[in-house]
Amino acid sequence: MEQLPPHLVNKKFPFLSKIHSPEDLKTYELEDLQNIADECRAYLIDVVAENGGHFGSSLGVVEITVALHYVYKTPHDKIIWDVGHQAYIHKILTGRKDLMHTNRKLNGLAGFPKISESLHDAFGTGHASTSISAAAGIAAARDLSGGNEKIIAVIGDGSMTGGMAFEAMNHLGETKTDVLVVLNDNQMAIAPSTGGLKDYLVNITLNKTYNRFRKFIWDSISLLNNDLGDAAKNAVHKIEDGIKAALTPGAFFEALGFRYFGPIDGHNTEQLVRAFREMRELPHPKLLHVVTTKGKGFKPAEDDQSKWHASSGGFDITTGKSLKKPGGAQPLKYQDIFGRALTELADKDHRIVGITAAMPSGTSLDVFQKAHSKRFYDVGIAEQHAVTFAAGMATKGYKPVCAIYSSFLQRAYDQLIHDVALQKLPVVFAIDRAGLVGEDGPTHHGSFDLSYLHPIPGMVIMAPKDEQELRDMLYTSMQHQQGPVAIRYPRGTCAGLTLRPGFTAMEIGRGEIVHEGSSIAILAIGTMVQRSVETAQMLEKQGIDALVANMRFLKPLDTEMLNSIAERYEKIVIIEENSTIGGLGSAVNDHLQKESLSNSVLTIGLPDTFVTHGSMNDLYRLLELDAENVSRRISNFYKGTVTEKSESSQSTIRTERLA
Amino acid sequence: MEQLPPHLVNKKFPFLSKIHSPEDLKTYELEDLQNIADECRAYLIDVVAENGGHFGSSLGVVEITVALHYVYKTPHDKIIWDVGHQAYIHKILTGRKDLMHTNRKLNGLAGFPKISESLHDAFGTGHASTSISAAAGIAAARDLSGGNEKIIAVIGDGSMTGGMAFEAMNHLGETKTDVLVVLNDNQMAIAPSTGGLKDYLVNITLNKTYNRFRKFIWDSISLLNNDLGDAAKNAVHKIEDGIKAALTPGAFFEALGFRYFGPIDGHNTEQLVRAFREMRELPHPKLLHVVTTKGKGFKPAEDDQSKWHASSGGFDITTGKSLKKPGGAQPLKYQDIFGRALTELADKDHRIVGITAAMPSGTSLDVFQKAHSKRFYDVGIAEQHAVTFAAGMATKGYKPVCAIYSSFLQRAYDQLIHDVALQKLPVVFAIDRAGLVGEDGPTHHGSFDLSYLHPIPGMVIMAPKDEQELRDMLYTSMQHQQGPVAIRYPRGTCAGLTLRPGFTAMEIGRGEIVHEGSSIAILAIGTMVQRSVETAQMLEKQGIDALVANMRFLKPLDTEMLNSIAERYEKIVIIEENSTIGGLGSAVNDHLQKESLSNSVLTIGLPDTFVTHGSMNDLYRLLELDAENVSRRISNFYKGTVTEKSESSQSTIRTERLA
Repeated sequence: MEQLPPHLVNKKFPFLSKIHSPEDLKTYELEDLQNIADECRAYLIDVVAENGGHFGSSLGVVEITVALHYVYKTPHDKIIWDVGHQAYIHKILTGRKDLMHTNRKLNGLAGFPKISESLHDAFGTGHASTSISAAAGIAAARDLSGGNEKIIAVIGDGSMTGGMAFEAMNHLGETKTDVLVVLNDNQMAIAPSTGGLKDYLVNITLNKTYNRFRKFIWDSISLLNNDLGDAAKNAVHKIEDGIKAALTPGAFFEALGFRYFGPIDGHNTEQLVRAFREMRELPHPKLLHVVTTKGKGFKPAEDDQSKWHASSGGFDITTGKSLKKPGGAQPLKYQDIFGRALTELADKDHRIVGITAAMPSGTSLDVFQKAHSKRFYDVGIAEQHAVTFAAGMATKGYKPVCAIYSSFLQRAYDQLIHDVALQKLPVVFAIDRAGLVGEDGPTHHGSFDLSYLHPIPGMVIMAPKDEQELRDMLYTSMQHQQGPVAIRYPRGTCAGLTLRPGFTAMEIGRGEIVHEGSSIAILAIGTMVQRSVETAQMLEKQGIDALVANMRFLKPLDTEMLNSIAERYEKIVIIEENSTIGGLGSAVNDHLQKESLSNSVLTIGLPDTFVTHGSMNDLYRLLELDAENVSRRISNFYKGTVTEKSESSQSTIRTERLA
Repeated sequence: MEQLPPHLVNKKFPFLSKIHSPEDLKTYELEDLQNIADECRAYLIDVVAENGGHFGSSLGVVEITVALHYVYKTPHDKIIWDVGHQAYIHKILTGRKDLMHTNRKLNGLAGFPKISESLHDAFGTGHASTSISAAAGIAAARDLSGGNEKIIAVIGDGSMTGGMAFEAMNHLGETKTDVLVVLNDNQMAIAPSTGGLKDYLVNITLNKTYNRFRKFIWDSISLLNNDLGDAAKNAVHKIEDGIKAALTPGAFFEALGFRYFGPIDGHNTEQLVRAFREMRELPHPKLLHVVTTKGKGFKPAEDDQSKWHASSGGFDITTGKSLKKPGGAQPLKYQDIFGRALTELADKDHRIVGITAAMPSGTSLDVFQKAHSKRFYDVGIAEQHAVTFAAGMATKGYKPVCAIYSSFLQRAYDQLIHDVALQKLPVVFAIDRAGLVGEDGPTHHGSFDLSYLHPIPGMVIMAPKDEQELRDMLYTSMQHQQGPVAIRYPRGTCAGLTLRPGFTAMEIGRGEIVHEGSSIAILAIGTMVQRSVETAQMLEKQGIDALVANMRFLKPLDTEMLNSIAERYEKIVIIEENSTIGGLGSAVNDHLQKESLSNSVLTIGLPDTFVTHGSMNDLYRLLELDAENVSRRISNFYKGTVTEKSESSQSTIRTERLA
């Protein structure tokens, strides 16, 4: 937030400066709401221009949010924001305006709704398509306890493609209870929405003649009625309801037991308030179809909606141009390396196909898409389908690469096991955002993938130490025909290496020594290899000579290297950017036990708690995973001054749980 | 299969005895098909009466299967059977008739389609709602390689409630490629289907006037056309397509980009053949709505469809009555104990609600339903929604108990993490079918839950050693407010204990010693506690005096007991009915390392491979988990004659993978 003195803030935001709660909002007249919405939008642009954050979604729901809070009464009424990054205006209007500059920073506001942050946040959201399920649960609880609160789920058309949203609507439609689903239809997820349902929504929206024709049909029915005998009249009456439903543009939703209303203009506060007031009086499940523009009111974001889905801040609020001084060339991101390497491999290998679940730009699979559009599949926000779709292609000899974020792949866990691994199908999982992701926080950290993949039989699991290894691992997995492969790599930039041309095959299950030393051994995987080398250099200054092994593979584990290390070094440190439960640490401990080796082992990784949001550096420091802390921990372990017990949070669970 | 001599088999099945492949079927006239279908049905009833197996679904699709194989040409064309237990007739017609008596037995036919079993099985299925995704993937592969094979997914209306089916239809609808979805609408999953969509399908089916009215509307449009000028005519033409779609009873499917056909009678072979021949010529995604009766042709199964979903065999083929001699009272199943205990607890605790995903009878939650119908929720085949729905209820102070099978809970892994654990919501997961399930095989074994739950922060994970502990654990979890609890228990019967009245709270994270001994310690959890006690008794005869500890909790682990055991016993054996990767074995190894304890540990559990199907006893023996083998393994470990290496499959992965 630009640091204006209070009187200037008041001048720039005459309404907003007086709104500290939804109750304040309700003191204004209906005519004022558009001005208030405009101020909200300007305020949001200021905040995001300065601090970064998700952007496009919240700009699109400014009027919806203002109107909802004008009509409904939170926290008594419950609003659940699907995916949650559309909730910035909600936060601004529910007493968190002055904290918006702390958004997504360590100890600041979360980038998503969070129950523990505000009573106005009815349910935490971060992954897509959960809101209707949560709303259905809250409604069931209300109905059991005889409450009268209204429950609203606001969900984008992108999130509506997630199967979970359909499951929830199918269930809710049958319960016939009072829930409002606001379908925020901007025809975009992060990327443009996909699927048959999208075309259907577009049809409804464009087909203005629909309503007129409906009227004609209904008139015909009435006309017909007049000419008929009583028996026939009754027959016609009986089917009339069904016919009316079939004639509604929202027949899809009506089929699930919802009443459909709309489409209406999502940027007209008056129309929205009127609609919500009507909705509030209806007792059944209903869906209000609201058409919005993602990025609304900020020209650059309207023009390039994918790019402005989120921003890291530091841009001119008129032009959208970056205010950052042009420095040297930035190193590429891991995702860029992936996208380019896959494209290069696919140039020569026609078996390769690329699959994403609505993340073409976030995974850089769009690079592949440009070169090989016929072999590119964006299936929508639908991780489950993505994985089994890949399995289907693999049965026919193709080599599907599913590019999915670590925390989103949790959605397809059963499909990984039941459809891919059980059938030994050679699907490759390119798992982006593995490990900490920074500002998006606990909903998005990839903290568990090593653990949840590890027990799956036949799954090869690898993690590159740098971009060169990512390329070679991708190449290696293309040759692997015996079953699935998972490659996990982090969000963010690479080391900036000069890359070898072409690719080199790696031996499956073979690690390497990257730093020699005689005092202690550090076994690391993925991002933590580089961290370990830095640490080893720091330890050298203290006279501790650490060997660093890049394990590369969690499964199969390089037991040969491990045995030889275990023979040479009494003390072994494992470092991984994953929960210390069930990942590399556990794999090594299990193996040492199996071999009856009694080395002393310290495992350093993510603690057995959900990790908060904040910059990567803040989080590494907080978790004592930065080089200084890691070297201190290793040094203490080496010297025997601190036992492993205090290094881990696991032993404290019982007290925490029972506290 | 009753063991008739060949000439009598031929007499009873004059058609079927000559059909050894779909090609043989095609040599018959259309008029013969109903007879062939009748023979298939009789054959199936014979086989299942003798050997048990899934039943109702396959009886319902007899005519569909005969007609599909008459019109399409597998293995060139691909038929994917959703859930797969409807595929018995398919197996009979594709060369496996004479092996049907081995169905679901060790080394026999699988109870589900299996790629490695037959070329006619295009994709393995066992969990619901995967077939359309697999079909979409196979179709995409066909389109890339320029093939002309037809692809058919046969899916029940129950499976259609799974979100994954919706995700797949939404994607497939947009691709506009040639796939046929056969909606086998029997208004049943295992239990009666649920959800708004079901009502919708019923409406379509019952509303015979629909089609007549559609004709009237279309005639009106034509009439109107004649009276209009050219501009108006064009306008009407433009909207005509949309109107037609809206007037179709299948508007729901048309909204997703499918053409809808039906409903037709699923027990009329001629009508089915005609419909499939039509379908075969249409190039787009299309859905054929076929109405069937689950259990068709077997009166007892038609009358009680839930009961006859599957049968363990041994019944009279006319009356359905069991041929088993009435013995003493059978011990209750774990699920019965759960259903009754929950009901009892809910009598006094109004916060308790019960949630199932289409498994009311399989989980015995129907017992709870009978007593507390208002607090019972069957959300359909929709595990993801079930879990987040529970989370929603928990935010309002309710105590939701989600009863879901172990392998199906894999479907809701993200929801467990993101919606429940992250928000520390006190949802209780009653995880039935944990560990081996026997005849249903690898798709249904609960081999991984301890591993995949373990890394989730704040999750309490327990497993009862017997029915008394199950009751007390359930009671204990009702008192636990700090976060989620998982209780995993097996399929099958309990020990048959006389139960204490009432409930006793257990201390979270506290195990117990169940058998004293001084030579070696066995740490067991769940089903393996009793096995360990048996083993200890066998070991005693060899002079090995084994302590058996019932750990009860995987998380939090009883580290106090563990430390004291580790101090007293040099050798420790862990036994769990779960993958040895990431479960109790790993937890103990990690802890011992943390404490710098160098005990020698042998972990016995499920191997790192998918376990085949067969009777529980066969599988236990195969995996060397029966008491004799376990005591032999422990004895060898105790005597030091066999190292752990040969006891585990993990160290062989690399060679297997690269073989």
